[in-house]
Amino acid sequence: MEHTERILFELFVIFAAAKLVGEVFERLRQPAVIGELLVGIVLGSHALGVIGDTEVHHTLQELGAVVLLFMVGLDTRLHEVRAVGGRALAVGGTGIVLPFLAGAGFIAATGRSGDEAAFIGAAMVATSVGITARVLADLGMVQEKESRIILGAAVVDDVLGLLVLALVTGLSGGDLSPVGIVVLAVEAIGFVVVLALLGTRAVAAATSTVEAARVHRSELAFALAVCLGLAALAGAAGLAAIIGAFLAGMAFSEVRPRWDLETQVEPVYQLLVPFFFVITGARVDLGALTDPETLGLVAAVTTLAIAGKLIGCGGAAWSMGRRSAAIIGVGMVPRGEVGIIVASVGLSEGVIKADLYGVVVAMSILTTLVAPPFLKVLFSDRAGGKPLPPGAPRTSGIEGVGG
Amino acid sequence: MEHTERILFELFVIFAAAKLVGEVFERLRQPAVIGELLVGIVLGSHALGVIGDTEVHHTLQELGAVVLLFMVGLDTRLHEVRAVGGRALAVGGTGIVLPFLAGAGFIAATGRSGDEAAFIGAAMVATSVGITARVLADLGMVQEKESRIILGAAVVDDVLGLLVLALVTGLSGGDLSPVGIVVLAVEAIGFVVVLALLGTRAVAAATSTVEAARVHRSELAFALAVCLGLAALAGAAGLAAIIGAFLAGMAFSEVRPRWDLETQVEPVYQLLVPFFFVITGARVDLGALTDPETLGLVAAVTTLAIAGKLIGCGGAAWSMGRRSAAIIGVGMVPRGEVGIIVASVGLSEGVIKADLYGVVVAMSILTTLVAPPFLKVLFSDRAGGKPLPPGAPRTSGIEGVGG
Repeated sequence: MEHTERILFELFVIFAAAKLVGEVFERLRQPAVIGELLVGIVLGSHALGVIGDTEVHHTLQELGAVVLLFMVGLDTRLHEVRAVGGRALAVGGTGIVLPFLAGAGFIAATGRSGDEAAFIGAAMVATSVGITARVLADLGMVQEKESRIILGAAVVDDVLGLLVLALVTGLSGGDLSPVGIVVLAVEAIGFVVVLALLGTRAVAAATSTVEAARVHRSELAFALAVCLGLAALAGAAGLAAIIGAFLAGMAFSEVRPRWDLETQVEPVYQLLVPFFFVITGARVDLGALTDPETLGLVAAVTTLAIAGKLIGCGGAAWSMGRRSAAIIGVGMVPRGEVGIIVASVGLSEGVIKADLYGVVVAMSILTTLVAPPFLKVLFSDRAGGKPLPPGAPRTSGIEGVGG
Repeated sequence: MEHTERILFELFVIFAAAKLVGEVFERLRQPAVIGELLVGIVLGSHALGVIGDTEVHHTLQELGAVVLLFMVGLDTRLHEVRAVGGRALAVGGTGIVLPFLAGAGFIAATGRSGDEAAFIGAAMVATSVGITARVLADLGMVQEKESRIILGAAVVDDVLGLLVLALVTGLSGGDLSPVGIVVLAVEAIGFVVVLALLGTRAVAAATSTVEAARVHRSELAFALAVCLGLAALAGAAGLAAIIGAFLAGMAFSEVRPRWDLETQVEPVYQLLVPFFFVITGARVDLGALTDPETLGLVAAVTTLAIAGKLIGCGGAAWSMGRRSAAIIGVGMVPRGEVGIIVASVGLSEGVIKADLYGVVVAMSILTTLVAPPFLKVLFSDRAGGKPLPPGAPRTSGIEGVGG
């Protein structure tokens, strides 16, 4: 039991510190997420050494990421993604290609290996749906058409980003033939498309059975079981588990208001998600970031990450007008979960070293810090839009956007 | 990440199976808890081998127990415990002494070591607050005076039971002098008394600060942080972590209705508590229970466990009348978390072997199955009492009971 007591102490420190520092950051009008990452960096095994780096930590980190993406999925309705589909696909697509080429090209130019270059490129690809959605929600701008395109494109980004991750991982192992790449790509796209299209219907078909169950809070139990199940299934299929969790969330997005799922899942979110960010931060080796060369890398990679999204995504939205293009470009800048997960995989597989892992986390933090103030300015002339009540028909504002 | 994916799959299987079998048990009008234990026994490393036995499992098991006892604590108001204090102390006390002596004496008589005898005695001591409270709540009888005495005595039991555990563990290590025993006892009692008396006041003093915090769901975050913190502190003080969690819950019991804490903690409870019961079951080796000698042990230990509480607790309540004494005796029969935790500690420390561990878990399951139907009959002539709304003054019915 000794070891378990020790872990309980760490869990307390992680959770309490995350909430305390989160409070400080909220008061400074900065995302609490950044505070949680910093808590991890300071308490991690490379700094104060309070937080260990064991299988238990990895499991809690993964559970936090799963709950985070499930919650994001709950907020993503298929028909809304479809409505902005064309534009979102264009924004997301160019927003993937430019940062990947810029990042991978730059790292390759510094004389590092092709595998390292590919991993850093992959880590620069995915916009953080979680962080972006949180910033837009804080601004009360979730229902603006630019916001919907940003969220739709961020979803596209995440999916493509994870696809890039799967490919890069397979390639770095050296065990992927061209046929293997195609199989992997088809599998990944198939998994996402099938679940996205059929998930909502499957949940709808199960609704009355679940509601009639006698187990306490059967709706929540069912949703959590599906979330864990699809996360495990995605993992088994060679995709990131969070993709499964996200698709599970999406499958429940239509039944969410009826079951009051957001309110029910939120306590779980509040408990587990801080573990994702703090433990992610705890794996950063600040020492590896102090030499001038690595600091230079941070500056260069961050600049490329920002420029890639601004030009790629803003460019794809140029026809909507300069202001809208700017909002979309800036809105796509924050990296987060997926980029950090890509870096974690690279670190675990031994493809990238502690310095590049630190560079990716630093880039995620910096891009996340940079976007909110600009978004605030760019949205400043809009009326503070209130989100519509859940369940209200929300198609009217979107129809003109899709085409 | 491979290993993490595997664990995610196990978590899904544990959670989904627990809820499915729980549903079957609810329909059979049996406690879902029993179903969860059985799921563990079937899927555990000694049977189908789906559920492993790693640090991750132990951590989730512990977290489940912590949340369970926190929730029980939330339902335990200090002044209510005090009101039935004298009687509860008598019922709890004799209900400890008899089963311990019966259990330890019997095991010693079978020729096993003194350490084994002490551990089995200790495992037979503690009534399951969680299971008993759930059964009483299902019957709508929580506000009956017998129920309050049962719950109060179960708390006394748990505290004394954990004290017995601490002593037995210390003694079996051979590293506890008579002075050490006294120090440990004073420490344990001091910890409980100080937190029980001051916890509620400390929370009351923090209320306005917590409510003014900007962090989302600051009340829940504060409560969970205190829960984890006191659990870790109890562990550091050599007590079981769940005692800290229980006292944390008690500290929040007064502010619970105002913060709607029960509703907020419940989703966390629904997610984590099944892991406690399933993983507990998974450590049982059914094979070790199949030989006639062990089956005989199960029968004998279970009989002594039932008789010890019926005679000990019922006897201490004899002056309340035969019916009330019977209700209290039967109500104290179910063992659970603490007994199983005692057995787990014994197993981990190598003091008891797989067969005796299995005997304790089997005894917990059998005592839990036996009590509800009898309680139902014994309460059958009472009007289906509805719990009072939270926050309503509830002292009127108690005052006459305490003395």
